[in-house]
Amino acid sequence: MKELKEKIEKNATILPGGVVIVSGFLNHRMDIPLIDRIGKEFYDIFKDVDPTLILTVEASGIGIACLTARYFGVDVLFAKKTQSSNISRTTYSAPVRSFTKGTVTDVRVDKRYLGKNDRVLIIDDFLADGEASAGLIDICRQAGAEVVGVGICIEKGFQPGGKKLREAGINLHSLAILDLDGDGNITVRD
Amino acid sequence: MKELKEKIEKNATILPGGVVIVSGFLNHRMDIPLIDRIGKEFYDIFKDVDPTLILTVEASGIGIACLTARYFGVDVLFAKKTQSSNISRTTYSAPVRSFTKGTVTDVRVDKRYLGKNDRVLIIDDFLADGEASAGLIDICRQAGAEVVGVGICIEKGFQPGGKKLREAGINLHSLAILDLDGDGNITVRD
Repeated sequence: MKELKEKIEKNATILPGGVVIVSGFLNHRMDIPLIDRIGKEFYDIFKDVDPTLILTVEASGIGIACLTARYFGVDVLFAKKTQSSNISRTTYSAPVRSFTKGTVTDVRVDKRYLGKNDRVLIIDDFLADGEASAGLIDICRQAGAEVVGVGICIEKGFQPGGKKLREAGINLHSLAILDLDGDGNITVRD
Repeated sequence: MKELKEKIEKNATILPGGVVIVSGFLNHRMDIPLIDRIGKEFYDIFKDVDPTLILTVEASGIGIACLTARYFGVDVLFAKKTQSSNISRTTYSAPVRSFTKGTVTDVRVDKRYLGKNDRVLIIDDFLADGEASAGLIDICRQAGAEVVGVGICIEKGFQPGGKKLREAGINLHSLAILDLDGDGNITVRD
């Protein structure tokens, strides 16, 4: 997606270790007109696989998932990282390691809200090692739901997540793919 | 908002202690067509105060804030509950006690993304004791930003948050206000 690529080239900053900071427009302060157009882009990419539900994980994925779901007219289910009284004790869960925080967290969804009739589109802001997507795919498998696609805003092409998902036959589309050269410079792939 | 009131009457469940569970449509599995209409309702209520930014707190507020911000054409800034490499060390922060989790968390926003020229509309799913809203208002005060309104989906009229904010002169609008009777039954105020 040309607009997202240009936004990354203009506004992203890179920290040592390949951490890409896009907090000015994607996952802290959110550029809503841009993210609305990202939602429309995901709609155009995935409308033919006819998702009935969009699944993401808190917190950065939620806004992107909601602005995408509006085009499809379907619900969003977001996996939670903490147990609270808002979620029943009966959950599907999977462990996910955060690349940016360096911690492992169980993400979970209430069993009442995901089932075998769901055709699930997974949406997230980043794909790095693929841990979050793999966790959400595993949760769908536990529920008997079908994963019809995975839509990612920014894929780190220099980490193995994208390759792993594509080799597993997942219908993955990333709107921007980043490359890292030997000098630590990041470029957006054409 | 009539549609939200009817949805609460039909789908909410009540736990002991006044915990109201709306995870089936508002803050876990999200009914996006409904929340889009909630966003339009907030737009109609607050368009005359001309917000330039919508502020919320992760995670439940984000989707509602994004679908509201789309009508205004403004950005969303969501306060974070954890320190990660996605957020700089230079933050405005305030302690917030969670009613449903019983814990106190510092919520924080990166100082680069909130400033004295911002006219801020705060959006959240629930208002109970008013701790989250008070924390976000305090963060705006630290930044020199003006809070032009607070929009809440569900206010618990039997807890003091709404009264405190109104007495402080905050431009607060709640789309549904709940009452709790002596038998522990919750009703939606007309």
